[in-house]
Amino acid sequence: MLKFADRVERVNPSVVREIFKLMADPEIISFGGGSPATESFEPDVIGEITAELLAGQPDLMLQYGTTEGWNPLRDAYIEHIAKPKGLDFERGNIIVTTGSTQGISLSIDAFVNEGDTVLVESPTFLATLMMFAKVNAKVVAVDVDSEGMNTDDLAAKLESTGARLVYTIPTFQNPTGLTLSRERRKEVARLAALHDAIVIEDDPYCDLRYAGESLPTIKSFDEAGNVVLLNSFSKTVSPGLRVGTVAASAEIIPKFVVAKQCSDTHTAILPQAICAEYLNRGLLPGHLERTAPMYKERLDAMLAYIEKYLPAEAEYTRPEGGVFIWLTMPSGFDAQELLVIATREYKVAFVPGAPFYANPADGKNTLRLNFSGATPDKIEEGMRRLGEAFKAYL
Amino acid sequence: MLKFADRVERVNPSVVREIFKLMADPEIISFGGGSPATESFEPDVIGEITAELLAGQPDLMLQYGTTEGWNPLRDAYIEHIAKPKGLDFERGNIIVTTGSTQGISLSIDAFVNEGDTVLVESPTFLATLMMFAKVNAKVVAVDVDSEGMNTDDLAAKLESTGARLVYTIPTFQNPTGLTLSRERRKEVARLAALHDAIVIEDDPYCDLRYAGESLPTIKSFDEAGNVVLLNSFSKTVSPGLRVGTVAASAEIIPKFVVAKQCSDTHTAILPQAICAEYLNRGLLPGHLERTAPMYKERLDAMLAYIEKYLPAEAEYTRPEGGVFIWLTMPSGFDAQELLVIATREYKVAFVPGAPFYANPADGKNTLRLNFSGATPDKIEEGMRRLGEAFKAYL
Repeated sequence: MLKFADRVERVNPSVVREIFKLMADPEIISFGGGSPATESFEPDVIGEITAELLAGQPDLMLQYGTTEGWNPLRDAYIEHIAKPKGLDFERGNIIVTTGSTQGISLSIDAFVNEGDTVLVESPTFLATLMMFAKVNAKVVAVDVDSEGMNTDDLAAKLESTGARLVYTIPTFQNPTGLTLSRERRKEVARLAALHDAIVIEDDPYCDLRYAGESLPTIKSFDEAGNVVLLNSFSKTVSPGLRVGTVAASAEIIPKFVVAKQCSDTHTAILPQAICAEYLNRGLLPGHLERTAPMYKERLDAMLAYIEKYLPAEAEYTRPEGGVFIWLTMPSGFDAQELLVIATREYKVAFVPGAPFYANPADGKNTLRLNFSGATPDKIEEGMRRLGEAFKAYL
Repeated sequence: MLKFADRVERVNPSVVREIFKLMADPEIISFGGGSPATESFEPDVIGEITAELLAGQPDLMLQYGTTEGWNPLRDAYIEHIAKPKGLDFERGNIIVTTGSTQGISLSIDAFVNEGDTVLVESPTFLATLMMFAKVNAKVVAVDVDSEGMNTDDLAAKLESTGARLVYTIPTFQNPTGLTLSRERRKEVARLAALHDAIVIEDDPYCDLRYAGESLPTIKSFDEAGNVVLLNSFSKTVSPGLRVGTVAASAEIIPKFVVAKQCSDTHTAILPQAICAEYLNRGLLPGHLERTAPMYKERLDAMLAYIEKYLPAEAEYTRPEGGVFIWLTMPSGFDAQELLVIATREYKVAFVPGAPFYANPADGKNTLRLNFSGATPDKIEEGMRRLGEAFKAYL
């Protein structure tokens, strides 16, 4: 009889990944994923870059590479992503990962023993909760308000739980779309140093800002070397390439290297080299300028159609960027039941909120809507359908 | 103060990956890696395929994909790799991995609890030993002779240890180059079923045969559904693309999917699609026919230069394929000390054998030589240097 290891028995498959499969049904309009707009992709540019890389450096593109990552990408990240944010890194501070997901996974590998207590925003990214479940971490939720993680509650819980790791998505958070304020970013870094805790600053959405001012990273306030900054090319260049980065102190990176050797040896070279070339050609700023109005239009459209089609009692966030809106219904509402009706009868999908909570009994009355993946027309049609589904459910 | 998790503290960095970095020194001739010949790469073909994929299916190439893998690749693996080996799979039996390394890692995630006993060939792939160390598995070595893993010893150790997992590289094994005989393959499958144990059949080198007859996989004798077969495109199409496959019973795959969701969400699409197209265009058989004589020439060259340049007391394997030769010196010899002299003074590298043993006190007198990565001329020059290093050490 098959007997699986405890760690995989503890983890439920990702509801997002299951909903992702629904997208194979062309009739379904899905607000379920976290996908960037396909209209934002630049296949011609990627194709041109790829042709040049394969012609110019064929052996390097196809042969094994180092676990730390493709050096031109480590350098380009330092120059074109970190430096404009006021961050000063050297190569030894950087490891390239197979998507930001692997950055989270390696962080847990490096810092979390079975049974350790970790602190997260409530709600938080469900894949991270899956990974914490895999290592049997005790996940304690920190309160969140309109300015992101409540740092008074964080201080209290660092004290009371003895947690040595804090996981946060400070900018346009997944799933709420909320952003941690400047003062609190500084405070998170201070509290981490005080309590000798590691902060995993997961920041894949930071460059998708459509209103308001950019905020400094938590990492920029990190004097103790306790903050691990994760960035991603998934929401800008392409998620299909699976390229992310970890930036951390030079004492931390070697442990990530060991963990990555145990995971996939190294990230595929061609996708790394594509991202490096993309940055070195100076294409990122123009891309962000070009896509921001498109995303803003989609965000505004979804907010307007929530008003128009969804029940008046729905409360929802109004993010300044990112890809998600978070919707809260009165207690007693069950978004999972709504999803069944919505997908089967009205051909529209979203993600129920409960799996984003450390305690899955919480958040049954919440749901996450992605606005970046569909055109305004599709958003209207999808929200109209969702309104019908709400009516049928309520 | 930084405090890392036990699992990464238990693992030493890969000596192979460290030696890999030496290759950045152009003066060093390295027999240290497991790299396929750069001359075997087909950058023009890959470039053409990539251009067509990006032009024809731009959105699919750049957007998120499913965790299970790019379906055309799952299908192409079934049709062009599994079927010619007499294996009959459906899509539900296959998950695509980020290189074969991830196939091993997910196997351990799915089947090995902390403290579990696992059985391996002695010596075995050092990255697998690192992964077992990461989960604190108790690794018990099974004896190996010229026909590969000794199945009498395997039977005895399954019985005495209660191990539920056997890891084997049956064909042109890493590091020895030895191949498990047909009868023993059948016996491994029978013993696994009898003892309710999982067999991880790690078979990345199976298609690199330069002499003798192909042998059936252990999986082909698997009536109980206990065998997990790992294949790789790293030794054929390209290691830099990081694409491998897991084939297993349909009850096993979902646990690998959960583990992979916790690891990197999915493997990069473009590399998967390149491999699928490569197979669907029927390019693999011609590639293998073309590269086999080249590899055979390198294998024969290295064997000849071992005779010519290395000490007469060196014993070594004579593989029928793969990429490695295993060399054993009389006890008292220390290959690690030889490596220091060889790299510093003679600019030639190899991998000392000890890290391939579950007990690192074993195998100090052994070393692994890779013959696939260098031309015959380079092999001669490198072996000449190695001979000098031996003389200086002895």
